Amino acid sequence: MNIVLLDAQQTASEMWSVRSPRQLQHLQQHLEIKVGDQLKVGVRAEQRYLTEVITVSSDEVQLKPISSQAPPAKLPVTLIVAMPRPKVLRRLIMDSVTLGVEKIILLHSYRVDKSYWQSPLLKQIDDYVTLGLEQAGDTHAPQIEIYQRFKPFVEDIFPQLISDSRPAYVAHPYASTTMPASIQHGCSVVIGPEGGFIPYEIDLLTANGAQAVSLGLRILRTETAIPFVLGRLFASV
Amino acid sequence: MNIVLLDAQQTASEMWSVRSPRQLQHLQQHLEIKVGDQLKVGVRAEQRYLTEVITVSSDEVQLKPISSQAPPAKLPVTLIVAMPRPKVLRRLIMDSVTLGVEKIILLHSYRVDKSYWQSPLLKQIDDYVTLGLEQAGDTHAPQIEIYQRFKPFVEDIFPQLISDSRPAYVAHPYASTTMPASIQHGCSVVIGPEGGFIPYEIDLLTANGAQAVSLGLRILRTETAIPFVLGRLFASV
Repeated sequence: MNIVLLDAQQTASEMWSVRSPRQLQHLQQHLEIKVGDQLKVGVRAEQRYLTEVITVSSDEVQLKPISSQAPPAKLPVTLIVAMPRPKVLRRLIMDSVTLGVEKIILLHSYRVDKSYWQSPLLKQIDDYVTLGLEQAGDTHAPQIEIYQRFKPFVEDIFPQLISDSRPAYVAHPYASTTMPASIQHGCSVVIGPEGGFIPYEIDLLTANGAQAVSLGLRILRTETAIPFVLGRLFASV
Repeated sequence: MNIVLLDAQQTASEMWSVRSPRQLQHLQQHLEIKVGDQLKVGVRAEQRYLTEVITVSSDEVQLKPISSQAPPAKLPVTLIVAMPRPKVLRRLIMDSVTLGVEKIILLHSYRVDKSYWQSPLLKQIDDYVTLGLEQAGDTHAPQIEIYQRFKPFVEDIFPQLISDSRPAYVAHPYASTTMPASIQHGCSVVIGPEGGFIPYEIDLLTANGAQAVSLGLRILRTETAIPFVLGRLFASV
């Protein structure tokens, strides 16, 4: 947690108030904050602030803003990823948000076990987003969309995400061209499930505008591929 | 597991033999292999092979090699990383190996909790390396070194890793220059602990040849930073 993320309503009056048990625990046990300390805060969908700690008690920390700063810019990327195993979901969402992905789409695919869609962890996505924002020092939650049917998504929604200035790349081990690097424009990136997309899915994606590109001979796990691809694509940022 | 990694002794005769319970379980329960299937195998420190499954029983799978291929090249990078929390160690080693890091150095630092060095998981590093190689389809384990004293390492060992053609970069949020991208040479990369290196450590690293470079305004977790940095540095590979 590199900032404490607050809702606008928590910062409506002159004195700001932290009351979330998770945040209080972090501030008191991990940071051991005390009156007079400076603390970095973000207000959801607004600015980041440097604040001063005014009061500390077991159920509330009060802060006053000192100065403000814009949150870091997003990466101009839509990440379309096959629904991962539930135990990977937290890390995948948190990392993608930390890295500044603008929009995340979770998609069904042939090799996604149907049970993944029943996971109670799906209800915690907003919490994972908050953790990612607090890690990055960001205040703007990305859009998150979920499509449990592959074909209608690829045929009806996917083409709307693509334009001449905003191509879509699907990572595919057998593609003959490699994933571009240091691009100067936005894009969509499609990452398959464990075991990869099946040929029908690659064909449908490319028929609907995606460029199949390789990441080299090493086969990466989804959660490793995402930061690796973003580092590569936006190396010039 | 994208290849099954075998020791040279397992492949000494004409018929190769898989006997590890972990590998047998994966082959039988996850891949559901049967006689006549083709299976990708790697021989430690040697080639990768396409093999044919000859026999399958509960305690052994026998294979015959069909054709061979070189393993993927390593990235010319030495990754020097502050010892992470034990629960992160598995992922950090596995991801670094999967991505092809040539050499991994685990280092003490002021903000590394001393208890991390007592973790029983440190004894499992070789297993994590194997998992990373099997994920990547690689056969060559990276060198792994451990230094529990920061200053002697930075003063005595670290300078030997650096040359004009092989610089060292330390990720530091307050550096004024940014991490290079698409480099055409080898390098060392130094990644600090949760909370970052302390100023004394940054000073000692730069006094001994490291270039302090920033990864931008977003603060990444160690395990997210590693693939992101490698994707950026080696974007032209």
